Amino acid sequence: MTDEKNRKGVVNLKEKAALLTELWSPRVVGEVDDSYVKIAKIKGEFTWHDHQEDEFFLVLDGQLDIHMQDHTVRLNAGEFYVVPKGVMHNPKASEECVVLLFEKKTTAHTGNVQEDMTRDLSEQLRPL
Amino acid sequence: MTDEKNRKGVVNLKEKAALLTELWSPRVVGEVDDSYVKIAKIKGEFTWHDHQEDEFFLVLDGQLDIHMQDHTVRLNAGEFYVVPKGVMHNPKASEECVVLLFEKKTTAHTGNVQEDMTRDLSEQLRPL
Repeated sequence: MTDEKNRKGVVNLKEKAALLTELWSPRVVGEVDDSYVKIAKIKGEFTWHDHQEDEFFLVLDGQLDIHMQDHTVRLNAGEFYVVPKGVMHNPKASEECVVLLFEKKTTAHTGNVQEDMTRDLSEQLRPL
Repeated sequence: MTDEKNRKGVVNLKEKAALLTELWSPRVVGEVDDSYVKIAKIKGEFTWHDHQEDEFFLVLDGQLDIHMQDHTVRLNAGEFYVVPKGVMHNPKASEECVVLLFEKKTTAHTGNVQEDMTRDLSEQLRPL
């Protein structure tokens, strides 16, 4: 067995994150049935939106505040939170932060809001 | 906003992993639509099996070898691999290793094999 074979299909999250050059631009790094695994580098404030699906946020590096209408959760590296479907939310990070997302393939980036920050699935699917 | 509110629903993976006392006994720590997020502590060899669904393995701590019939992949901490549905596999870890799994709720622990190592969903759903 060669080293190359040993690594085929293996995704190193730190290596992938280092390739992210755009903020708030999730990139697909894996596919699990009808869901995508994505990573994104974020800083500042996103936009208020909701989804028809649950959304899983795992902080890989940095700190993330997920603002919801009635409360806010703060996530440090190694912590996750699932925003339930239909719940308006707005992620914010005062410093650069890397997150792993687990989302249905049908999940729209900014829900039914179309904004400058919206990245459609074809943009998210560009190989890193 | 109190600290308590800030933390509701937040899952710290290291804290949860520290509560795992049984090897090869995945525990559900999150729910995302029709999938579960699970963590498991493993050491040694599991058993050959496959699933009708894809299975996402992310190594949180340690090193994992996923043996498949024609090759093996080695995962270090911070690396993930998706075993495609229908692919026979057998996870092995020479030292203690903690993994995060992302699986459909329908995924059977050891596929259509029922063994001493099999943990049914009710066992996996016991709160940590």
